[in-house]
Amino acid sequence: MRGAVLHAPGDIRVEERQDPTIERPSDVVIRLVATCVCGSDLWPYRGLEAINPPAPMGHEYVGVVEEVGDEVATIKAGQFVVGSFFASDNTCEICRAGYQSSCVHREPMGALGAQAERLRVPLADGTLVATPMPADDLVPSLLAASDVLGTGWFGAVAAEAGPGKTVVVVGDGAVGLLGVLAAKRLGAERIVAVSRHEPRQRLAREFGATDIVTERGEEGVARIKDLTGGLGAHSVIEAVGTQESMMQAIRSTRPGGHVGYVGVAHGVELPGEELFYSHVHLHGGPAPVRRFLPELIELICDREIDPGKVFDLTLPVDQAAEGYRAMDERRAIKTLLTL
Amino acid sequence: MRGAVLHAPGDIRVEERQDPTIERPSDVVIRLVATCVCGSDLWPYRGLEAINPPAPMGHEYVGVVEEVGDEVATIKAGQFVVGSFFASDNTCEICRAGYQSSCVHREPMGALGAQAERLRVPLADGTLVATPMPADDLVPSLLAASDVLGTGWFGAVAAEAGPGKTVVVVGDGAVGLLGVLAAKRLGAERIVAVSRHEPRQRLAREFGATDIVTERGEEGVARIKDLTGGLGAHSVIEAVGTQESMMQAIRSTRPGGHVGYVGVAHGVELPGEELFYSHVHLHGGPAPVRRFLPELIELICDREIDPGKVFDLTLPVDQAAEGYRAMDERRAIKTLLTL
Repeated sequence: MRGAVLHAPGDIRVEERQDPTIERPSDVVIRLVATCVCGSDLWPYRGLEAINPPAPMGHEYVGVVEEVGDEVATIKAGQFVVGSFFASDNTCEICRAGYQSSCVHREPMGALGAQAERLRVPLADGTLVATPMPADDLVPSLLAASDVLGTGWFGAVAAEAGPGKTVVVVGDGAVGLLGVLAAKRLGAERIVAVSRHEPRQRLAREFGATDIVTERGEEGVARIKDLTGGLGAHSVIEAVGTQESMMQAIRSTRPGGHVGYVGVAHGVELPGEELFYSHVHLHGGPAPVRRFLPELIELICDREIDPGKVFDLTLPVDQAAEGYRAMDERRAIKTLLTL
Repeated sequence: MRGAVLHAPGDIRVEERQDPTIERPSDVVIRLVATCVCGSDLWPYRGLEAINPPAPMGHEYVGVVEEVGDEVATIKAGQFVVGSFFASDNTCEICRAGYQSSCVHREPMGALGAQAERLRVPLADGTLVATPMPADDLVPSLLAASDVLGTGWFGAVAAEAGPGKTVVVVGDGAVGLLGVLAAKRLGAERIVAVSRHEPRQRLAREFGATDIVTERGEEGVARIKDLTGGLGAHSVIEAVGTQESMMQAIRSTRPGGHVGYVGVAHGVELPGEELFYSHVHLHGGPAPVRRFLPELIELICDREIDPGKVFDLTLPVDQAAEGYRAMDERRAIKTLLTL
């Protein structure tokens, strides 16, 4: 089959890869309907995260089940399915507490390479959610549920966005923008998007942002303080993962407020004494997307939300390299790859 | 009046200090009935925290109101009162959210020096809680409410200790021991105290600990994992404030679990990537003791709890130097100073 492989920083090639097969009886193999490029794929693409080349890429997927392992009980051949970037049994104590991305049997889907024609999905009963065969125009939104929507949603939940709250979103990538959407759905009163890119500002407003702040770092913090009577926001979603963005998030939050951080941390060190006196709640990590999938799929299929709008570039999977380049150069928010 | 003053690391002297007076119309002046030495007083005493000598010491107090400022509405002369280590208006948005120790008008009581015969208390209506004149044997427990009980309680609340939960307490000082008591009162199923000192282990058990772990650092983490099916605890109270204790707390917590950290952070740097993948909730800081005072005072006056047991050394205030020495050398858990 064809699949995207990273050979070195900046060197993505779509080439022949071995077809996946059932390896364990809890596996299924799906034929991808769509996949996409994640902001987190850019870390190794930019050489900022070590890889072991050649590395199959991609961890976001929707598709149709083709082969089913002997122990799979609920997922059937022919079903349209959505999963997330960690396979999980959905039955262990950690999963039942809602932290499927820390499942005791979790497996990272990124290692299997979802930017490809076919994909093996471990722990299929726990990992996948089957849906009725969707209309074509719903596919991008269901694909967004696989990671960026679920991640933005977790950020908003971790930040305790809700009625009466002022929510700040640091980061205007797909996850940050969908954090805005999530905060809106969760009932936030005021949503401040931090963005200096006009097309992203527009999408943030469309998703529910009431204010835009263009300043970053300490100036950004000062603007948020101005907007919140000097106190800081109740809830801040961090969707970048750098030292600057984490500190901006913490410093933009009022004492007793909540930071939900979902940007994959790279080189971040949090100063303990400042954190102590900040009085914020800090929660985040790899989003347990599986927790939210049933609810998100229902909202999408009922056309209550349209997270697929974050895809502003669609290319055949064979042009994955251009999809990465466009995101790297910030010409695209997020690239959908068709098959 | 007589009061304890730190002149240099290790050099505590009880000497003549100027009597406090009403400086602002929201002040009162109290005559201390009892005061004490805090674990946090040992940081400057040991030279690990800079001071500007001569520094009046102490921030824990119970006493009787002597003078009342013109704008004080609810606190009256002659009342027995308990306050905490931050004066707070108890009316601002931050106070109303339960974070009185980050009140927009907060003032640190430590700067005023509560290890003395008399003390000015700013923002008296917000800061103080009046109680009926207590029996003498309740005074130590009411004094504990002023800081260490309220701080341990906040640690337990921040760690979401409650029914069905396994709670680990890192730190066997007065705050950690009272974190055990708080976790017990909040309904925790299993309470693991980390302590290698036999008298403290005994008090921990008396307060409700079901298990004692003597190992620290990575060995301590491994023991907690052993006790929790490999997952880690639901709730961990951190009551030390060092790099080792913070990392032990975070690593002892299961994904989705809660760390309540109340040890004043000294030289702590939290690695962002590890924190991200740990999936823990992190909350803490200077305890908003005022939030809990009414409830804690009631539990004490009803003789439901006896937090005063943490005082295992009682000295006249004139012997404060010996009180500090005994705590520094871990001969005493906590020293009560009488007046």
